[in-house]
Amino acid sequence: MSELLSVADADQLIRRQMLSFGSERVAIDKAMGRVLRQTVRAERDQPPFDRVMMDGIALAEAGAAARRVALVGRQMAGMAEQSLDLPSGCLEVTTGAMLPRGCDRVIPVEQTRREGDIYVLAEDCQSSPGQFVHRRGSDCRERDLLLEPGVRLRAPELAVLAANGVAEVEVASIPSVAIIATGDELADVDQSMAEGQIRRSNDRALAAALASRGFDDLLLTRVADDLAATTRTLDGLLASRQVLVLSGGVSVGQRDYVPEALRALGVRQVLHRIAQRPGKPMWFGLGPQGQVVFGLPGNPVSALVCAFRYLLPALQQAIGMQTAEAVTVCLQSEAPTHPKLTCFVPVQVHHDATGRMMAQPLPTRTSGDFSSLPRTAGFVQLAPASCDAAAGSMASFHAW
Amino acid sequence: MSELLSVADADQLIRRQMLSFGSERVAIDKAMGRVLRQTVRAERDQPPFDRVMMDGIALAEAGAAARRVALVGRQMAGMAEQSLDLPSGCLEVTTGAMLPRGCDRVIPVEQTRREGDIYVLAEDCQSSPGQFVHRRGSDCRERDLLLEPGVRLRAPELAVLAANGVAEVEVASIPSVAIIATGDELADVDQSMAEGQIRRSNDRALAAALASRGFDDLLLTRVADDLAATTRTLDGLLASRQVLVLSGGVSVGQRDYVPEALRALGVRQVLHRIAQRPGKPMWFGLGPQGQVVFGLPGNPVSALVCAFRYLLPALQQAIGMQTAEAVTVCLQSEAPTHPKLTCFVPVQVHHDATGRMMAQPLPTRTSGDFSSLPRTAGFVQLAPASCDAAAGSMASFHAW
Repeated sequence: MSELLSVADADQLIRRQMLSFGSERVAIDKAMGRVLRQTVRAERDQPPFDRVMMDGIALAEAGAAARRVALVGRQMAGMAEQSLDLPSGCLEVTTGAMLPRGCDRVIPVEQTRREGDIYVLAEDCQSSPGQFVHRRGSDCRERDLLLEPGVRLRAPELAVLAANGVAEVEVASIPSVAIIATGDELADVDQSMAEGQIRRSNDRALAAALASRGFDDLLLTRVADDLAATTRTLDGLLASRQVLVLSGGVSVGQRDYVPEALRALGVRQVLHRIAQRPGKPMWFGLGPQGQVVFGLPGNPVSALVCAFRYLLPALQQAIGMQTAEAVTVCLQSEAPTHPKLTCFVPVQVHHDATGRMMAQPLPTRTSGDFSSLPRTAGFVQLAPASCDAAAGSMASFHAW
Repeated sequence: MSELLSVADADQLIRRQMLSFGSERVAIDKAMGRVLRQTVRAERDQPPFDRVMMDGIALAEAGAAARRVALVGRQMAGMAEQSLDLPSGCLEVTTGAMLPRGCDRVIPVEQTRREGDIYVLAEDCQSSPGQFVHRRGSDCRERDLLLEPGVRLRAPELAVLAANGVAEVEVASIPSVAIIATGDELADVDQSMAEGQIRRSNDRALAAALASRGFDDLLLTRVADDLAATTRTLDGLLASRQVLVLSGGVSVGQRDYVPEALRALGVRQVLHRIAQRPGKPMWFGLGPQGQVVFGLPGNPVSALVCAFRYLLPALQQAIGMQTAEAVTVCLQSEAPTHPKLTCFVPVQVHHDATGRMMAQPLPTRTSGDFSSLPRTAGFVQLAPASCDAAAGSMASFHAW
């Protein structure tokens, strides 16, 4: 099996071919989950003014010392800055308001009693300069770096964008993907099946895998086991989509027309066959206009594993997403390995009481056996070895 | 602070009030990420027939012993079952085909040589009964339980649905949510700001939080700090939405008109104020038709923490989603606690070499300081304590 590529080499070869799919400006409302392709700096100091943190009264040292304080005005949230002209007086303030000029502290309403136009401080009320005042610029200064390219936009990032006036945001464009199912034996989910047929499921699983990572510009189609039809369909897709994902048809069987059709269309093979189980027949190539073509194996477990191990990370790299740190897990029981092949083994995971992420291998019986995958969280990658991976050993984990 | 509810009690009180939002049937194409509300059983045995696992020839014991085997037919994937009538002969087969009647094994094409209508087995070719045959029913039997209600539909589940003929699937309905921003000091992301104003950001962050968990039936609106306007807007929303999420306006300040408006509209307060930092002013109530109303604090960090700690888990429970196991992490350095309040502290996380999930606390300076949240993965929950949580201690983790 010396002609087989290692998993690491295959991964590198694929990543090296991936080009950027560019970027686009979208309204902030459409930005959730997208990958940022710009820098975001603070629009102004945050908070932009000395900000009142409690409902109550704002006053100065003199008023605090007097304990009985004349009410001379109000400073509500959203109002322009008011001024305390009587040093021993106070203004009513609400949370989020500017601290009025001349004031240096806020006393919460619960610690006061109002008598007409006088606020009386509670007996145990202590105060100090700056109390319940959120100082201008204490969180960040104008022009401070807040977000860098490559960040995926979650709730905290959306808050930062909105708070800093970024109404339109530069994000990575989502590549257009075609998912192509091959195989005459495949019936659709709502068709009746002839003898010898099975239902087509890889295309929907691959669509879900891609969509789960934000790649939702998807076109699903199928081709029959026929060279002319395969060539015609792939020709059209190469002209209209940036990424082609095939499932099946990439082995060396007599009905595997995909490699021949791709060759005829000028798609250059970059790699074929990887030293791994499942997923050995995996194929990858480049079209004449830089289209990337992933030929995933037809077996359902193989197709899913190859999608999560190669396709999704490559696309995430291409859109400039900061790569998530690899997750290392501890095997809870032994797992099968192979002397020459890297094995991908489905696992359940949980965190034990010490925070350790434990993985329980649930090997499939065959690469066609996907009925048990819903009970798993993903799979671990086990290097070639002459004996089983022992309980307690570490492995890298890939989540579905 | 004896009047404050504990975090656990508040969580329970909220969960106890959550009713189901019902279920609906959707096409399999629309099911990704939804929560299953039906049982899925195997449509038939899987594989549904003795299935060929390699391209090659299918034959019986007699043919394997003879080493030179007459080609008498073909059995391609998708074809009805063929038959080997000559016991010492063979049929060409492709991966995924039915094993022809009379055959008991498959020999890969690479281990054969064809001479006219004869296949000659390679000298080192060994075979045994069942070789490269994926036995009918070996993965699962017809009617076996494959998916249970409460499962979120990811790629593996979509494969199972498609493979078992589930073209339409019963999933939990997504509740209709209104997100209501309060506060006269708030300017929109693309507006110019008057003195004393800040930009509105909580509503978009809350929308992103909800959408990240699949709750994407969202309406965003705002109300001014005015009792009549607040009452009118909330009245309309209570009539049209199942869940109201308010940010701000729930304290006891003189401009906090939300509690008064809700009372006037028959919304019953279930809880107000929780012994936690940030997020103490949190409010929760029930409308006359069972609408749930979450009054989140107006401070950005408080609003986000309360959304991820109470709102999202409550909605996930209401749609019948299997609750994910709590994730326990190990603190990498000490974190601030409070003697009477549960503290929620933002953290960065990573897995160390032993698979342990480590959390590095990044406390915010104030509950208004959200500029640093993008550097965090979520937050840990720290019980009330008289001294800081030590490095090496365990805490439950909630991801953004």
